[in-house]
Amino acid sequence: MTSVGTPAPAYPGLNAATEELKSLLGKRATTAAAVREQHSHGESYHTPAAPDVVCFPQNTEEVSEILKISAKHQIPVIPFGAGTSNEGHVHAVRGGITIDMREMNKIIRISPGDLDATVEAGVLRKQFQKALSNTGLTFFVDPGPDCTLGGMASTRASGTAAVRYGTMRENVLSLKVVLADGRVIQTGTRARKSSAGYDLTRLFVGSEGTLGVITEVTLRLHPLPEAVGTAVCSFETLHGAIEAVIETIQLGVPVARIELADEVTMDAANRFSKMNYPVAPTLFYEFHGRNTEDVKDQAAMAQSLAEEHGGSGFEWATQLEDREKLWKARHDVHYAFLALRPGVGQSWAHDVCVPISRLADCILETKKDNVGAPFPIPLVGHVGDGNFHMTYVLDPTNEAEVAAAHSLDDRMVRRALAMGGTCTGEHGIGLGKMKYLELEHGPATDVMRAIKYALDPENRMNPGKMVEPHTLF
Amino acid sequence: MTSVGTPAPAYPGLNAATEELKSLLGKRATTAAAVREQHSHGESYHTPAAPDVVCFPQNTEEVSEILKISAKHQIPVIPFGAGTSNEGHVHAVRGGITIDMREMNKIIRISPGDLDATVEAGVLRKQFQKALSNTGLTFFVDPGPDCTLGGMASTRASGTAAVRYGTMRENVLSLKVVLADGRVIQTGTRARKSSAGYDLTRLFVGSEGTLGVITEVTLRLHPLPEAVGTAVCSFETLHGAIEAVIETIQLGVPVARIELADEVTMDAANRFSKMNYPVAPTLFYEFHGRNTEDVKDQAAMAQSLAEEHGGSGFEWATQLEDREKLWKARHDVHYAFLALRPGVGQSWAHDVCVPISRLADCILETKKDNVGAPFPIPLVGHVGDGNFHMTYVLDPTNEAEVAAAHSLDDRMVRRALAMGGTCTGEHGIGLGKMKYLELEHGPATDVMRAIKYALDPENRMNPGKMVEPHTLF
Repeated sequence: MTSVGTPAPAYPGLNAATEELKSLLGKRATTAAAVREQHSHGESYHTPAAPDVVCFPQNTEEVSEILKISAKHQIPVIPFGAGTSNEGHVHAVRGGITIDMREMNKIIRISPGDLDATVEAGVLRKQFQKALSNTGLTFFVDPGPDCTLGGMASTRASGTAAVRYGTMRENVLSLKVVLADGRVIQTGTRARKSSAGYDLTRLFVGSEGTLGVITEVTLRLHPLPEAVGTAVCSFETLHGAIEAVIETIQLGVPVARIELADEVTMDAANRFSKMNYPVAPTLFYEFHGRNTEDVKDQAAMAQSLAEEHGGSGFEWATQLEDREKLWKARHDVHYAFLALRPGVGQSWAHDVCVPISRLADCILETKKDNVGAPFPIPLVGHVGDGNFHMTYVLDPTNEAEVAAAHSLDDRMVRRALAMGGTCTGEHGIGLGKMKYLELEHGPATDVMRAIKYALDPENRMNPGKMVEPHTLF
Repeated sequence: MTSVGTPAPAYPGLNAATEELKSLLGKRATTAAAVREQHSHGESYHTPAAPDVVCFPQNTEEVSEILKISAKHQIPVIPFGAGTSNEGHVHAVRGGITIDMREMNKIIRISPGDLDATVEAGVLRKQFQKALSNTGLTFFVDPGPDCTLGGMASTRASGTAAVRYGTMRENVLSLKVVLADGRVIQTGTRARKSSAGYDLTRLFVGSEGTLGVITEVTLRLHPLPEAVGTAVCSFETLHGAIEAVIETIQLGVPVARIELADEVTMDAANRFSKMNYPVAPTLFYEFHGRNTEDVKDQAAMAQSLAEEHGGSGFEWATQLEDREKLWKARHDVHYAFLALRPGVGQSWAHDVCVPISRLADCILETKKDNVGAPFPIPLVGHVGDGNFHMTYVLDPTNEAEVAAAHSLDDRMVRRALAMGGTCTGEHGIGLGKMKYLELEHGPATDVMRAIKYALDPENRMNPGKMVEPHTLF
């Protein structure tokens, strides 16, 4: 990622806007090429596109002022968290002002009594976890990288514990948002439930910066489980592993995490982490309970279901050290994948999500379709939700590989949609999945356009992502 | 409720529209006074307001045609479920066409493998429960009356099990909705999670018919618990009972239900159901577990916390018969309240919801404010969520009582809002809480108006409820 895309168009008011931003923020507004380049991309393969200017506000009022300058001079705004997007959410495809939120990193309030907390949007996930230590509470939404809570809210992120604790959809109680004209709103309250008006919180969660800039996030916390157990189990077939997952969910075993890795992933993990797990479809489990007995009990049920479906070598542990060792293979897969093609490979991770009854079909057909691909394609999946990822470990300078990747991904998405699923379970639309939005939502896409028009008629909020604004009637 | 409000204005196109509706639906479109009167109110105290015509469509296409007629002649539409609203959602305050959804009562699909089901909007809650028998699955959202699933979705209903299983917000996966011009959309997919686009499902859940007419609902199901236990415990003080709830939630005891009744409620329940529970603040618990041991274990934790806060006589049962007896007092409270003033009393139920750390303050201050009221005011609460109800058992023909009720309710709502809560946890805005919407949401109310404008610029969808349409900029 060396070339910086040339922003089009050139905004007549850009120089005036830049002066106003500098006068507002001093050195925290910059047009330095290196900073613009850093903000031209996330972690995805999309062609970088740099903004014209990058701002680093330190509070909501400054974000509001930036939006007023954007409105005055008709210049786009792109919110930027930790830049870990897989789908090109942060690319400044039409230039403009990137708002890097990372200097808004204060933890405003942690209320153990209410099991909630409010943080500024730039607070990182791991920073937040650290702040929660000694409260007896935790926050379970855990996408792979160390992203910002604001970024996680705006992309409706999830992770490995969503099967029990939900995604950002379930774990955001309220948001502070700056609208396109600089107006500041608070969505929802700290009450656990409410029937008072349209659910604006859920509207902004997952809106990818296209409706406003999230500056504060109020999050639901969960008590730390008294006892935790982890298990790993290998299966004769992928189909058997998936059947074991489905029955575990159906019988109401409250698994906290249930992750699938295929034989390609296990092979990569063994090599990278110097382990000796069977090179076979594998489930990683985590159980949370009120005591060790409770956890053992859950594990016993899961084990018995696994064995009915060809699972063997069910290995489990409740000690912290053993647990960490068992999950290490799962957490390190990203690096293990890159190590499959050292110095050459980039990892392009694509995710879809289907109703769980179609999961086996969707995965097996996709793996069949992947046979003969010019690069390795390991699979990992948050399969308790019907969500899985195929990672193309490819050489991005090789045109044939890139073409094959696009084609395989396209067929996987269409397969998932045909099975009643969604084109992305947790990575978001960004640039990468825009072409599937209407295919998935049909005429409901027009409602999305109308909402975009209602909140951003001038199309200044992260334009070129999600939908273009348009009236419904 | 005998007088039928006169609809204003008289719509010039009404006669033509009525003819078109009759030609579309035959006898299922009617202007009969008795039918209009039946549809002039729900179960609330608000002055009845009858529609001009009532339709009984049998499928989505017919609803779509009704909306086209509404659009053509500029006549409002009011969706009507089982008419159990507490806040006047179904009153035809501007006349127009009421769409009674109860002939759309087909259960379209139950998929045990996916733990989901799709039903037409007019399916009743108890009918749905019956259809789920023998599937091993259940649906846990249980507002008091036997309402329709469409009505529950459009008011974001909840009930006693929300503390563990969530409200309609968490349990609706997808909706079929007819828009103001008759267009039909499907929101979301059957995938458990998705990051693909704006969350239209959550936008329509709780929109009270003001953005479109819900015709089909796809619902999340849960496995029936293997073991169930119920317990009742009396407390020396209300404060102690609430503290016990807070600690139970904080420690992660996965209570399925935890309901509070005050001494007024217990007295009424004892008289009505011929029981002898102490006339004292009381908690009703329900525990769901994988086996009896698991349930006993949860109950033991809850009991120990209760005893630390002055709870005594913790009485619990796992047999179905005993459970039913224990919960009978809770389920019959509505009738017990009416029996406090036989032949005179109407029950006006008002609900608010606050962050759980403020629950004790909010309840105690409200009870203090209630002292000296000219009618009994029993309390029940879904306290695990911070949600409680005060029921004014009053004589609606007595002006002083009515005035006192409005004044007490108004102070309770303002108290809840000042504590960071919401003006309604589960009853909705309807007519009754419109005056508090802006007080609660501040400038975010303008975003609601803009969304209303985007989807219903002509203000034909249940007008006079929630917000009037208005552009944001």
